[in-house]
Amino acid sequence: MQLTMTKRLFVALVCLLGFSTCIKRAQAQLDGASALDPIVALGSWNDCATKRSLIAYVQRVCDPKSSDFVPPAERIAVFDNDGTLWPENPVPFQLAYAFDVVEKKAAKDSQFAEHPMVQAVLSRDIPTLLAGERHEGLLQVVAMTHAGMSVEEFNKSVSEWISSAVHPKFSKRYDELTYQPMQEVLAFLRSHGFKNYIVSGGGADFMRVWSERVYGIPPEQVVGSSARTKLELRDGVPTLIKTLDQIFIDDKAGKPVGIHQSIGRRPIVCFGNSDGDLAMLQYTTIGNPRLSFGAIVHHTDQAREYAYDSAPKSSGKLIDALAEAPKRGWHVIDMKEDWSKVFAE
Amino acid sequence: MQLTMTKRLFVALVCLLGFSTCIKRAQAQLDGASALDPIVALGSWNDCATKRSLIAYVQRVCDPKSSDFVPPAERIAVFDNDGTLWPENPVPFQLAYAFDVVEKKAAKDSQFAEHPMVQAVLSRDIPTLLAGERHEGLLQVVAMTHAGMSVEEFNKSVSEWISSAVHPKFSKRYDELTYQPMQEVLAFLRSHGFKNYIVSGGGADFMRVWSERVYGIPPEQVVGSSARTKLELRDGVPTLIKTLDQIFIDDKAGKPVGIHQSIGRRPIVCFGNSDGDLAMLQYTTIGNPRLSFGAIVHHTDQAREYAYDSAPKSSGKLIDALAEAPKRGWHVIDMKEDWSKVFAE
Repeated sequence: MQLTMTKRLFVALVCLLGFSTCIKRAQAQLDGASALDPIVALGSWNDCATKRSLIAYVQRVCDPKSSDFVPPAERIAVFDNDGTLWPENPVPFQLAYAFDVVEKKAAKDSQFAEHPMVQAVLSRDIPTLLAGERHEGLLQVVAMTHAGMSVEEFNKSVSEWISSAVHPKFSKRYDELTYQPMQEVLAFLRSHGFKNYIVSGGGADFMRVWSERVYGIPPEQVVGSSARTKLELRDGVPTLIKTLDQIFIDDKAGKPVGIHQSIGRRPIVCFGNSDGDLAMLQYTTIGNPRLSFGAIVHHTDQAREYAYDSAPKSSGKLIDALAEAPKRGWHVIDMKEDWSKVFAE
Repeated sequence: MQLTMTKRLFVALVCLLGFSTCIKRAQAQLDGASALDPIVALGSWNDCATKRSLIAYVQRVCDPKSSDFVPPAERIAVFDNDGTLWPENPVPFQLAYAFDVVEKKAAKDSQFAEHPMVQAVLSRDIPTLLAGERHEGLLQVVAMTHAGMSVEEFNKSVSEWISSAVHPKFSKRYDELTYQPMQEVLAFLRSHGFKNYIVSGGGADFMRVWSERVYGIPPEQVVGSSARTKLELRDGVPTLIKTLDQIFIDDKAGKPVGIHQSIGRRPIVCFGNSDGDLAMLQYTTIGNPRLSFGAIVHHTDQAREYAYDSAPKSSGKLIDALAEAPKRGWHVIDMKEDWSKVFAE
């Protein structure tokens, strides 16, 4: 119960929200290396079926002499973010951000702190926040903290948070916790003419602040949950203000909808890690006239990261997609066995 | 009255809707040429202030030694479509498509033809179609013709139409009527690392069918009006169905909203032709930390195309943006004087 509610809390929150290092240099090196030797390019992967299949797949669709050749313009790869490119424990990182924002504001503003829903955040009283069909309590908190904020103000807030907040288990900045083997997949695909997209239940505005720096994925290749912005003149400058209008949750069946909305064509490669990615995996691989590739990151490594599937501590429940994987030919990545390294040094 | 209603009819229609030749080869040639000599690349432009300013602007933002240098990732250019990249007379081309679909269906289906709103389309009875606050009559027609259609079915319908329908004045296929000077601008910018986006009041799904072939602009770089799709299983295949949910009109103040939604950063170059592009021109050029460039295509050529601004025959009213242009430094393109050629041969 608590677990499901935490997930619902996250999903409800993200639609209002929109993460530093020398990663770019590392990415450029990876890009160069991967064009030369896939084994080197995917260096943090042990020799395993998924690695061999991915290399064979990419070589096939990039070979102009192959009947499975895919023109570069159609090489679209989609990646879930939380649990696929970086962890989603103990709570999805964007939820950690939202709680921090509320706590900071409550410390400065006693009237804000007295609000029953702020009290609920401070005491992590999830049931109170989620009471009611539309989670009115949570929406109140979101409205109090983000709606009315300009896109620039929100970007600044996220940027400051990610450059200072530290993960409770790994004692590192959140943006230093991306999975090195997945960074290598991104670079490997990019070096073969693929356009990588993040397609996440997280807020588009939240991810766009750091996606280019952290993953080499520019803002325009980030698909996420969102609400419409509203154009206002502030000091004579056209400014976009965050609202609660036309909320779109880019999760489950929403992922193919978000992909169509933003990309306008069917991807050929899809990586996910939970049942929230099932519809996107199906959309990528079932009835696709192009040869496609689907894969699931299975969290099996309690020592180096986390181990969960049917009973996750927060989000990331993986039951249906795991059961369907053999039938669909989706590759299941055993994090403990397949990855020689989890995080970048 | 009639004029305004036709425009409203168009705007109301497009949200449910989503253009051949050797243009790609020509584009590749243009791309190569433009990197060599901007004067050659913009060969259909007479020597004029806008042409000189555009060349100087592009050289400045692409020069790493210039204080106005813009990294390639931030070189985003946005273009309105109807009236900016191709004509919007006698009616916007997508409206011609919608009317043709209704007429074709009515010829085959006598029950459909008897519907009062279909009769209104057949007799071009615009006031009846637009009666009511939400234009219920028009929405009924749209629902009867497009809602419930899969994205693939819609794409096929648009594709068949554009490969056969002929423009009443020019007696050419609609997709053979793009403005050659604007095709040259697209190629010139692309050869200098710009990513070109269409940002149009037209339907995203309608434009994506032909934008890559006609403009070299891939589906993921098309921002337009839309409604949410809905994921359904059809014969076991995940299929996206067009609906009337969460309608978004990508016009006027909606254009910066659409840009933020799909691109996530502020453009530095903007071309439009009407007051529907005013907000997008302002958003691109006012308060932008980067050096920006705004331009307006002014339809002044009744002999070769059309001449209109304050009293257009259908859409494309240009009053406020034209008045604001000198104050903002936006370049006004005099189609008759500045273009040596209007359409590609």
